Amino acid sequence: MVIVMNPNVTQEQVERVVHFVHQRGARTHVSYGEQRVIIGVIGHKSEIQKEQLKTLDGVENVFSILKPYKLVSRDFKPEDTVIPLNGVRIGNGEPVVIAGPCSVESEAQIIEAAWIVKEHGGHLLRGGAFKPRTSPYSFQGLGEQGLKYLRRAREETGLYIVTEVLDANDLPLVAEYADVLQIGARNMQNFNLLKAVGRLNKPVLLKRGMSATLTEFLMSAEYIMSEGNEQIILCERGIRTFVEYTRNTLDLAVVPAVRQISHLPIIVDPSHGTGRSDLIEPMALAAMAAGAQGLMVEMHPRPEEALSDADQSLSPVQFARLMRKVNQFVQWQKRDETFENSLV
Amino acid sequence: MVIVMNPNVTQEQVERVVHFVHQRGARTHVSYGEQRVIIGVIGHKSEIQKEQLKTLDGVENVFSILKPYKLVSRDFKPEDTVIPLNGVRIGNGEPVVIAGPCSVESEAQIIEAAWIVKEHGGHLLRGGAFKPRTSPYSFQGLGEQGLKYLRRAREETGLYIVTEVLDANDLPLVAEYADVLQIGARNMQNFNLLKAVGRLNKPVLLKRGMSATLTEFLMSAEYIMSEGNEQIILCERGIRTFVEYTRNTLDLAVVPAVRQISHLPIIVDPSHGTGRSDLIEPMALAAMAAGAQGLMVEMHPRPEEALSDADQSLSPVQFARLMRKVNQFVQWQKRDETFENSLV
Amino acid sequence: MVIVMNPNVTQEQVERVVHFVHQRGARTHVSYGEQRVIIGVIGHKSEIQKEQLKTLDGVENVFSILKPYKLVSRDFKPEDTVIPLNGVRIGNGEPVVIAGPCSVESEAQIIEAAWIVKEHGGHLLRGGAFKPRTSPYSFQGLGEQGLKYLRRAREETGLYIVTEVLDANDLPLVAEYADVLQIGARNMQNFNLLKAVGRLNKPVLLKRGMSATLTEFLMSAEYIMSEGNEQIILCERGIRTFVEYTRNTLDLAVVPAVRQISHLPIIVDPSHGTGRSDLIEPMALAAMAAGAQGLMVEMHPRPEEALSDADQSLSPVQFARLMRKVNQFVQWQKRDETFENSLV
Amino acid sequence: MVIVMNPNVTQEQVERVVHFVHQRGARTHVSYGEQRVIIGVIGHKSEIQKEQLKTLDGVENVFSILKPYKLVSRDFKPEDTVIPLNGVRIGNGEPVVIAGPCSVESEAQIIEAAWIVKEHGGHLLRGGAFKPRTSPYSFQGLGEQGLKYLRRAREETGLYIVTEVLDANDLPLVAEYADVLQIGARNMQNFNLLKAVGRLNKPVLLKRGMSATLTEFLMSAEYIMSEGNEQIILCERGIRTFVEYTRNTLDLAVVPAVRQISHLPIIVDPSHGTGRSDLIEPMALAAMAAGAQGLMVEMHPRPEEALSDADQSLSPVQFARLMRKVNQFVQWQKRDETFENSLV
Repeated sequence: MVIVMNPNVTQEQVERVVHFVHQRGARTHVSYGEQRVIIGVIGHKSEIQKEQLKTLDGVENVFSILKPYKLVSRDFKPEDTVIPLNGVRIGNGEPVVIAGPCSVESEAQIIEAAWIVKEHGGHLLRGGAFKPRTSPYSFQGLGEQGLKYLRRAREETGLYIVTEVLDANDLPLVAEYADVLQIGARNMQNFNLLKAVGRLNKPVLLKRGMSATLTEFLMSAEYIMSEGNEQIILCERGIRTFVEYTRNTLDLAVVPAVRQISHLPIIVDPSHGTGRSDLIEPMALAAMAAGAQGLMVEMHPRPEEALSDADQSLSPVQFARLMRKVNQFVQWQKRDETFENSLV
Repeated sequence: MVIVMNPNVTQEQVERVVHFVHQRGARTHVSYGEQRVIIGVIGHKSEIQKEQLKTLDGVENVFSILKPYKLVSRDFKPEDTVIPLNGVRIGNGEPVVIAGPCSVESEAQIIEAAWIVKEHGGHLLRGGAFKPRTSPYSFQGLGEQGLKYLRRAREETGLYIVTEVLDANDLPLVAEYADVLQIGARNMQNFNLLKAVGRLNKPVLLKRGMSATLTEFLMSAEYIMSEGNEQIILCERGIRTFVEYTRNTLDLAVVPAVRQISHLPIIVDPSHGTGRSDLIEPMALAAMAAGAQGLMVEMHPRPEEALSDADQSLSPVQFARLMRKVNQFVQWQKRDETFENSLV
Repeated sequence: MVIVMNPNVTQEQVERVVHFVHQRGARTHVSYGEQRVIIGVIGHKSEIQKEQLKTLDGVENVFSILKPYKLVSRDFKPEDTVIPLNGVRIGNGEPVVIAGPCSVESEAQIIEAAWIVKEHGGHLLRGGAFKPRTSPYSFQGLGEQGLKYLRRAREETGLYIVTEVLDANDLPLVAEYADVLQIGARNMQNFNLLKAVGRLNKPVLLKRGMSATLTEFLMSAEYIMSEGNEQIILCERGIRTFVEYTRNTLDLAVVPAVRQISHLPIIVDPSHGTGRSDLIEPMALAAMAAGAQGLMVEMHPRPEEALSDADQSLSPVQFARLMRKVNQFVQWQKRDETFENSLV
Repeated sequence: MVIVMNPNVTQEQVERVVHFVHQRGARTHVSYGEQRVIIGVIGHKSEIQKEQLKTLDGVENVFSILKPYKLVSRDFKPEDTVIPLNGVRIGNGEPVVIAGPCSVESEAQIIEAAWIVKEHGGHLLRGGAFKPRTSPYSFQGLGEQGLKYLRRAREETGLYIVTEVLDANDLPLVAEYADVLQIGARNMQNFNLLKAVGRLNKPVLLKRGMSATLTEFLMSAEYIMSEGNEQIILCERGIRTFVEYTRNTLDLAVVPAVRQISHLPIIVDPSHGTGRSDLIEPMALAAMAAGAQGLMVEMHPRPEEALSDADQSLSPVQFARLMRKVNQFVQWQKRDETFENSLV
């Protein structure tokens, strides 16, 4: 850390800060500039907190030098993390498409949806059995029955299942049925849940909280990794801003940013990211172009009957069109890459 | 709901929307204006969702007419909800002050803090035993041991205890020690937890999520009330905005807004709302002036040693000064009220 | 407009609202629902304002049915507006690339930059002579001298010039030199300036304000069109959010949204949109994939010497790479379009 | 500035950064920590920009140590700036109340409004003659005729006039009629206008832009002061956030923050800050409690007829009530201050 002292700081105040740092086992380097005294903390110990230093007399500001995340960063692990799932290798240049309805509504619905996903080349089936709904009067999901229907859809189509777990308590149950455990945006900082999935050996899809900074997003992944589970797929799903035309604002810049900072794969959910079925296709392609390693989209056999998220679900025809576009785009990316490599 | 059709809508599209509504048990009223056809839905059933209507051909927009909350609204219960706690009646014009450290750090620390709170006229003691921390490497709280220290502080000083519960799983344990159960901002939409505290007969302090709209905030209270528990204290603690000078932006307008819409009491947390100990006092007074029915502030016997939130904790001297100011302000409000009433 | 009355509304209040509307020359349609009285305003006159209706007793809410923009909407003009500029036709499926330094710094610098832009296939040269800077102590641009250097660059390379006009006062001067007049984000609601450029016969590049909604953005274009000038290029350049990793948050969903609502072309500025040169390329490609009809990027012969925006300017090598990628992407889009058309 | 180098930085990269700084006339201090090399820049010259340093190889981050504002800061001028206006001394502990309609609509309306303001103890009359309106089809103000009506109101009532100037071009005209020149939120970064009012000897009321940080707000005041005019009244009027219940989010924490950092007075506009007449009173009192040195409120003799901002204008009765409350509050503050002083 670097401590910047007030312009009118006294020598005594400087000495008290230095003493505070030394007492906690670190060293200091004091630099007397023309306008400010700056104290560098060397050999930083976790006992010294930025917030504590700010309370000391004469301190104007404190800057952190080190990033707070370790395990999720490329400094820790330079090569991409690759998660093999049902034949597709997420994070390895093969884009994964996860699709399906917001909620599992019936056995027939989820099986019909699964066949549509499979027919058009989707890789995993999504569907919520436990649903986090803003209103207590909205459909709350079918619970365990929904998980059973998902298993049936998996048996029929062979598609792997991505489904949300809302609570550490439900985890043993959900983990029995899910191939990938989804942590929703509202739970990105449910630290008990993060630790609990961190102790499993199962891929986790971690959605960004709707007002999470990139650092907070990565710190939540760090919680999971710090418990031992490295199979984490990050998912950008839009942030809350003043914008009123879309439900959320899809922050695609986070995609190349994550790929620089972290070894973890990142995918994008343009359904929640826009809240409008007519904007899913262009934003899905934009996500791919920004470097996303996959997509998560809502698709319902009959959107007008969907019990949740009807207006941000693709119809089967729209999904077919999206998959065709995505596949063509991937072809282009591969050709482009080959071309780039030929230049080196 | 009111459905607005596209400018180029066909008669067939109008009829299909009408049919969709009728099939689900509601009636319609179609109005042919000069520029738009508008379809009113009369006798609205929960089977018809705004999101579904938006997927129908020819629909441009759908407006909700009714508010989504019921039990928490003044339409449902016109008189203020009053929660008696240790001699103070929250929501009854007597401002409650909840104070104490961010985290319980030791028995000595929490007991010392409790005496300071009591000495200066605070009503309840806060202190976290289970802490939600952004980093897995930060102090995570003392857990059950912390709860035991809180009980000791209660026994010594007689102050009631407000402490956070992070998980439905921990609820039986925490409820044993807490007089008021705090649901933190990160858990405002942890619906399992909301339902679980809703089934208890114990006051709940519900903090606003950092990107929650007022409607979402009230809907989370609705979850608790819909399970039977009416003893809910709302708490504004700042929202996330682009502002960089303070940790959060305290949205004080929500205070008079809640008091209009809802019968539930609302208090304000200027510690989290600003993240700066030097701004707590003016913002606490501002909260009172806006109509807040209480305050929640962080106070640590020695802020520079606090294991969390050091820079947004008042020192004992600052807390004493705040309490003096708050009490004087309350005197003024009472005199002002008497004066107002004498005019009627 | 649709007026929703309070649940406890009196018949007298309803009649007063109806009277208010009739007095101002419009008709009403009153609908008595089960839970609310709703008053539709038919034959809406501009004399009746939503804000006025909200002040009347018994009114709970007022919804606007009609969009506030007219001339810029596809309802008014269904076909795309195409702006021919120096051989490229903006809005006609040919992506335009506008590139160059943030500021004109010297004759040599801008001519060198222009040759680099031209060499790699850019279509127009950007460069600021009048600079809006947050600090009065920062470089404020070369003023008229800068415009003269831009003219020299145009004479040498044949590239058309895009440059910012800050003030209606400067407009005659700037218009003499510019092929496209840029209205910056800070001036998106400088209505005098909008009207002034609306009276010229010269293309205008209108940047979105950093906290402008889509409606406000389109209303600013409406100002220009309402004065007669239809040659407007919209430009998304990022909005201000809580995100700290990038300078702004590029709201790419606005691109397909504008293309649905409006006939005006829209381009994207990933330099301001991210504030980081390492994120420009992925976000430029994402913008194209979302449907942007062009790009505006900052490029400096030697970014480390740039007097403004050094860290969001591409180097010549980075620019060359971007142009190669963009051109390959355009090839893909064309092939994809041919393929799509072959399916019809 | 403090330059933080990458973890894998080479000695050559460090040397190149040092060379870059030296070449531009400053000195460096290199500190080799356990995890990072840090380079302090000593004797900082304006030739070295943070943005340039960030482009150099091996640089991870650059922190500014000095604040960008000078003249507006308390470091520059420790005592409060006091602006005497028509008997009231703004910034001297006497709260100023500026009130009146959003727009001047007629001679009769503004004179009626002025008498109401005066009768209830308001100090200055506000009223817009040149109006910045989102829509070109909305009432744009009466222009010079409006200014003449304002002068008539001043002659009749003796109230000083606060009115907005939209453009440097209009400044000579508006300055002839106005006692205080208002710079609106949309013009907070209209730097030509800031410089122009900076060259006059007349008080300026500078409103915060709707997405301006505190630093940007102060930098705009710095523009005015750097031209010689020190009579600046800052005005918080709400920022744009995701909140939907109010038009803007009043950021009251900026009030005590400005009073710490700057010697300039700051007032609050709860009309624009909330956009709802029913929230003006509580937020006005909150502003005073937070330390605001005055208020600016919209008041219209008949809000339902107002041509702009009808729903955020107080009626005369509401204004009378607000003034009574404000005056009582001020009494309390004075007593409280006397009490505080008696303790010292």
